[in-house]
Amino acid sequence: MKSKKFGIIGGDIRQYYLGQGLKKDGHAVMLCGINKGQNAEEENSLESVINFSDYIILPVPTTRDGKNIYAPLYHKNIPLNLKLLDMLKSKTVFAFNISSLTLFKKDVKNKQITSFDYNTEKFKILNALPTAEGAIKLAMEESGKTIKNSVSLVVGYGRIGKILSKLLYDLKSNVTVSARKSQDRAWANINGYGSMDTPSKNDDLSKYDLIFNTVPKMIFDKEVLLKCSKNTVIIDLASMPGGIDKKEAENLGIKTIHALGLPGKYFPKTSGEIIKSAIYELIKEHNL
Amino acid sequence: MKSKKFGIIGGDIRQYYLGQGLKKDGHAVMLCGINKGQNAEEENSLESVINFSDYIILPVPTTRDGKNIYAPLYHKNIPLNLKLLDMLKSKTVFAFNISSLTLFKKDVKNKQITSFDYNTEKFKILNALPTAEGAIKLAMEESGKTIKNSVSLVVGYGRIGKILSKLLYDLKSNVTVSARKSQDRAWANINGYGSMDTPSKNDDLSKYDLIFNTVPKMIFDKEVLLKCSKNTVIIDLASMPGGIDKKEAENLGIKTIHALGLPGKYFPKTSGEIIKSAIYELIKEHNL
Amino acid sequence: MKSKKFGIIGGDIRQYYLGQGLKKDGHAVMLCGINKGQNAEEENSLESVINFSDYIILPVPTTRDGKNIYAPLYHKNIPLNLKLLDMLKSKTVFAFNISSLTLFKKDVKNKQITSFDYNTEKFKILNALPTAEGAIKLAMEESGKTIKNSVSLVVGYGRIGKILSKLLYDLKSNVTVSARKSQDRAWANINGYGSMDTPSKNDDLSKYDLIFNTVPKMIFDKEVLLKCSKNTVIIDLASMPGGIDKKEAENLGIKTIHALGLPGKYFPKTSGEIIKSAIYELIKEHNL
Amino acid sequence: MKSKKFGIIGGDIRQYYLGQGLKKDGHAVMLCGINKGQNAEEENSLESVINFSDYIILPVPTTRDGKNIYAPLYHKNIPLNLKLLDMLKSKTVFAFNISSLTLFKKDVKNKQITSFDYNTEKFKILNALPTAEGAIKLAMEESGKTIKNSVSLVVGYGRIGKILSKLLYDLKSNVTVSARKSQDRAWANINGYGSMDTPSKNDDLSKYDLIFNTVPKMIFDKEVLLKCSKNTVIIDLASMPGGIDKKEAENLGIKTIHALGLPGKYFPKTSGEIIKSAIYELIKEHNL
Repeated sequence: MKSKKFGIIGGDIRQYYLGQGLKKDGHAVMLCGINKGQNAEEENSLESVINFSDYIILPVPTTRDGKNIYAPLYHKNIPLNLKLLDMLKSKTVFAFNISSLTLFKKDVKNKQITSFDYNTEKFKILNALPTAEGAIKLAMEESGKTIKNSVSLVVGYGRIGKILSKLLYDLKSNVTVSARKSQDRAWANINGYGSMDTPSKNDDLSKYDLIFNTVPKMIFDKEVLLKCSKNTVIIDLASMPGGIDKKEAENLGIKTIHALGLPGKYFPKTSGEIIKSAIYELIKEHNL
Repeated sequence: MKSKKFGIIGGDIRQYYLGQGLKKDGHAVMLCGINKGQNAEEENSLESVINFSDYIILPVPTTRDGKNIYAPLYHKNIPLNLKLLDMLKSKTVFAFNISSLTLFKKDVKNKQITSFDYNTEKFKILNALPTAEGAIKLAMEESGKTIKNSVSLVVGYGRIGKILSKLLYDLKSNVTVSARKSQDRAWANINGYGSMDTPSKNDDLSKYDLIFNTVPKMIFDKEVLLKCSKNTVIIDLASMPGGIDKKEAENLGIKTIHALGLPGKYFPKTSGEIIKSAIYELIKEHNL
Repeated sequence: MKSKKFGIIGGDIRQYYLGQGLKKDGHAVMLCGINKGQNAEEENSLESVINFSDYIILPVPTTRDGKNIYAPLYHKNIPLNLKLLDMLKSKTVFAFNISSLTLFKKDVKNKQITSFDYNTEKFKILNALPTAEGAIKLAMEESGKTIKNSVSLVVGYGRIGKILSKLLYDLKSNVTVSARKSQDRAWANINGYGSMDTPSKNDDLSKYDLIFNTVPKMIFDKEVLLKCSKNTVIIDLASMPGGIDKKEAENLGIKTIHALGLPGKYFPKTSGEIIKSAIYELIKEHNL
Repeated sequence: MKSKKFGIIGGDIRQYYLGQGLKKDGHAVMLCGINKGQNAEEENSLESVINFSDYIILPVPTTRDGKNIYAPLYHKNIPLNLKLLDMLKSKTVFAFNISSLTLFKKDVKNKQITSFDYNTEKFKILNALPTAEGAIKLAMEESGKTIKNSVSLVVGYGRIGKILSKLLYDLKSNVTVSARKSQDRAWANINGYGSMDTPSKNDDLSKYDLIFNTVPKMIFDKEVLLKCSKNTVIIDLASMPGGIDKKEAENLGIKTIHALGLPGKYFPKTSGEIIKSAIYELIKEHNL
């Protein structure tokens, strides 16, 4: 890839490391909106960053409140408004989950903004790995037991379920995977795990030291929690509102952790690399 | 094994879990000296515990100051003195690193105390696993990168080195093992790792994201640290004083962590199990 | 499952082991058409087997020539004709790849035959494992090199490609997976393998000791074979006619093996178990 | 290493590949005594090879009958006699198991022959890998079952036992290791295997599909074989006379295979590489 001019606007420390990675590959990079912490000296004004750059990278998530670019390390707000879109005119913009950005969707066309969503399938697959490693780290912290010899259940066999069950298995946990589909259970068996259908009140779940939920549905309601042990630690990796009735779990004395955003929280350097590789793939795919 | 009467004296939360495990196996257990935290209701006086028990278990370590039984969760001291030895008369005592307990060594004979050291080879092997998992957890916390795709060096190929390098490999780190002996390096290669001699000032160590030292010798002095990168995290697992010149590392901006006592700190339930299994083996071996 | 009466008709030694497995689980079993080899004493007439059984199991494949039940271990033919269908009236029949059995399709209805195809997705997944292990065995036989340290390419990332690349990786081959889809390549990377697009004449393939093809398309034509080394062994696991121009490979001095039917050939006991488990799942799913 | 002149005398096809590997590394190589098969054109007379070379490599084993150099691919004998030693005068000779070569031991000194034994610890470790892979291949051939889901026992936890149990585990066999020493059993447990003491007539061994013996002692006598199943395949990897009473096994209908020399038989290219690396290490170690 030829050397390009990237502008990174907002985001957490991942975006800083994204910038470092881009520079290492020979690109020119300017940052705005990440000036807390060790990175103050690289900070620039929004205008100068946008003027400088051919490619603008908005953060993960691009916005939390729908009004401002997500910028927790910035001393002020970056409003996600028409003025910003005007500034982005004729630029190529990489944003995250564009389909949820109403303003963006309406106005990119008449502003001649070329925009790409880097929450691609590839991004999701690569990002599932730091999520799974982060879940392992949490389990190590919370259960008082080593992963080795633990008895664990992974609920759901999508991206995160697949990678997490493999990590647990490789660390010699006694793993069971729950999945609705017979073929997912066959794959779990091929990979050396036990398998079961989605946990219900008819299952005895008391043997599990660790339960990881990856399914964004209320699976662990009161009746299912009653089949768990007080010694079980339940780590919920499903997006809000998750799959566990936390209040009931608390009443029953079962420890639960709703663990969100693990890649950015625990492994920001790796996360920066993953964003970079998703953007590179878009650039290659669309000949940008 | 027939049901026996165990008395557990002092120690940290591991000893509490040891007691839980012994009870689960059908033994009668009394505890003294672990009454902080959730375990207060099981607390008993020293006298009643000793009178009750045939087998007395002293903690890991049995003493720190040479004067008192190690009992960080107790509200007072348990002096390791002649009075205690008198009380232990005709009992079977399991202690940790007995050879370093001067008083003990002198007086066990004339007190008719039968004593066993449970810091056996088996204990050391089993205990290396939680040490290695704890090191993985630390690396996940400190480096900002996933273990997968990290470049790591394990210095030393003893118990901990063997287990840790395997965990890193299984988590898909790019692992190199350093060892003095040619045959250890051949084993490392068989296992899929790179290998090198002990790091010296002639080696370029800048590619490593993670360095784990397991050798209790000053290997990472100033000259060797100069060959590391500022992005390297060095985790020292060697017993005091460790193998890294911490002051020089700090001067050079290299992050180091001297990580001791990981099994008890992170995985007290597993640690209790390991102590139990070492004691069971002594009981079986000596027909106690 | 309650004890049932099974009749096994035709097939190779897998069907014999299938019968053994069914008996071990408490079912009554009669066999016809597998009387060569060690199993003669269990042989029965076609009529007696069908009369006796509620469930009839036809072999893998159910027919090769379209005229007779596949029965290589039988001293005569078992015609797949209307007379046979008459005999099967009101029975439950498990056959393999039913959709290709023209006669069967037409007549099952008016004969009141209930029929199920056990070439299910679950069967295919479970059967990919012995295929992959068989490919490993072939590679060990043909290349003169251990799998460890070999450089290998797996073409295609379907069922067999996924399992085979994992086996190679676990045996410490240096594995690359080729796949058309970007997301398959991302998964290959997550799993620790290299990845590439489908091999073409623009790729240098000379570094591979082993190439396994799983894609039923002509990929290794003359131009691609010219990019391979004479030391490469190419194992073609794709169904007829496979994905390699065998004549050109021979001209170029490249060793190729078209390896079909490995599960039955190498692991008939495991194959019998897999057939059994696919049939059990059909029985459970349809409440037979 | 600077380019050197090597002469390879006798041996099986491994020595041919050793020569190929040495050439690839830039050394000059002459061969004598391997002229059957594809290698005839590289054949030379014994005299010319010795005259040409500074380093002479004798084969694995160096002799079988004590009288001639082992040369199964040669059309005549190469006597291991004083005449040969005269010819080797002032040369550096690498031989295998020198301590067993009586003639050699007596005369090397006064012939000014510098000799090294390449059956080093490193050679033995590296060579255990092809032995273990070969045992896996044999098991695949002989048992009719995949390694996955098989129940296997590895007797002995030396070099081969360690590597073989790991391969079986990685291929998802349910592995047990037997070892006399408690600490070996603890290591087996750490690695995820079951463990037991050396098999005796008091053990029920009927659950094992596969038993691999690596201990050169009569362990599987009649009484122990009676505790095995007729479906068990026993693969004996111990050097002659092995650890199984083959006659009794035959009487009991238990399949046994005495598998010797697997590296040379199955993986001659890898074996040539291993010999090369052992010789390189000797050259480096002794500054030859």
